[in-house]
Amino acid sequence: MLTNSQIKHIISLKQKKFRTEHQQFIVEGIKVVKEFLKSDYSVSAVYCLEETANELSTFSKVAPTVITEIQLQKISSLETPNKVLAVASIPKVEFNFENSQNKLSLALDGINDPGNLGTIIRTAAWFGIETIICSENTVDAWNAKVVQSSMGALFSTRIIYADLKKIVAGFNAKRIPVYATTLDGKNTYKSDLSSNGLIVIGSESHGVSQDLLSIIDLKLLIPSYASGSAESLNAALATAIVCSEFRRRTN
Amino acid sequence: MLTNSQIKHIISLKQKKFRTEHQQFIVEGIKVVKEFLKSDYSVSAVYCLEETANELSTFSKVAPTVITEIQLQKISSLETPNKVLAVASIPKVEFNFENSQNKLSLALDGINDPGNLGTIIRTAAWFGIETIICSENTVDAWNAKVVQSSMGALFSTRIIYADLKKIVAGFNAKRIPVYATTLDGKNTYKSDLSSNGLIVIGSESHGVSQDLLSIIDLKLLIPSYASGSAESLNAALATAIVCSEFRRRTN
Repeated sequence: MLTNSQIKHIISLKQKKFRTEHQQFIVEGIKVVKEFLKSDYSVSAVYCLEETANELSTFSKVAPTVITEIQLQKISSLETPNKVLAVASIPKVEFNFENSQNKLSLALDGINDPGNLGTIIRTAAWFGIETIICSENTVDAWNAKVVQSSMGALFSTRIIYADLKKIVAGFNAKRIPVYATTLDGKNTYKSDLSSNGLIVIGSESHGVSQDLLSIIDLKLLIPSYASGSAESLNAALATAIVCSEFRRRTN
Repeated sequence: MLTNSQIKHIISLKQKKFRTEHQQFIVEGIKVVKEFLKSDYSVSAVYCLEETANELSTFSKVAPTVITEIQLQKISSLETPNKVLAVASIPKVEFNFENSQNKLSLALDGINDPGNLGTIIRTAAWFGIETIICSENTVDAWNAKVVQSSMGALFSTRIIYADLKKIVAGFNAKRIPVYATTLDGKNTYKSDLSSNGLIVIGSESHGVSQDLLSIIDLKLLIPSYASGSAESLNAALATAIVCSEFRRRTN
């Protein structure tokens, strides 16, 4: 059964304020919910149409609640709801230098488009990057649009919101390399890239913020071969190109 | 002045059928229209709010028609219309082997998401790829969403719709290399890549179609470092990674 107070609660999770208050977020659609249920993320509730209940109960730790299409329409954030909606707990993680110093991690500075963030999370997962540290002004990763566009990759990634200045300073103190993509850096293709460290990506319109750049030594440029001058790359494309280049070196 | 028949005509261009019939499409927003007006594309009409008329008339070959916000709202495809809308002619171009044989070109096989196509066009422009050949079942590049998401890069790119089998056969006959991104190809990082030829990109869900793959010798894989198995890359990310790798070799 789905009570009115549950409906009200789920709908409230569309807003960041209530996600933060309850430390919960919504996952929707068969494919993404399956990835979620297979992950280490903690499940609070699963609501589904009768047709998918059996299938989902085989790998959900929480028994699915069967609801009607009309109820699903009420609680869904999707234009076309897709059979199942789960309520997930936001994992409690803090950045851990010990875990990260021998790996490659990603830091996102002011990425405000949810679709872009979701795509960056997918890209990071593809390149085996486990930790993404987001600046406080990066869009909320538990936003429904981010969750959907990450297509399940969110659940294999550690997402942390933190003051990037402190994080970068921590890397600097331990002499672990920190890279930033900029328009005036050194040609990425010709730079020394290590197999560990932090790659800072800024937004397409604002780039990496000046106060961060001032404490980052290794600035990387993705060379353009454009004939015009108006071309730029969005943050997800820049992430893909740079991560590919880091991984290639150790391939 | 904007007549009712002009309004009707412009609105009709939201549909592919009428774009094809009239060989025209719509360009919107200050930034994108400026890129359009600076390009070699042919302008049929420019409609703008009074505040931008002076600015636009300095570089438009066609005198802008001043319209009201209500009129702009009527003809716009955008949720929030942005001051100017231009009617453009679809350029008449055919694929020319002579022009392309010493360059790198892109072929898109069944890319059906407009936002993805727009992003691929931006990526191609960034990497100096002038010609994109689309399969007949690739979404229409003159669709408003493609035009907007290409952010002006469309106007520095030659877009051609053609039977990709014939195009690839043409490259084969001239012994110009044709590459395709696949999930069972050779590691891109370790493959010989030339500075000319054709790179065929398929959709994320269907990949490059079998009848094309059967006539393509050089299959490229983008290695994944993912811990899970669910990860995949969308076509725009795959394009960015592969184009970057081609360009790096000649950097």
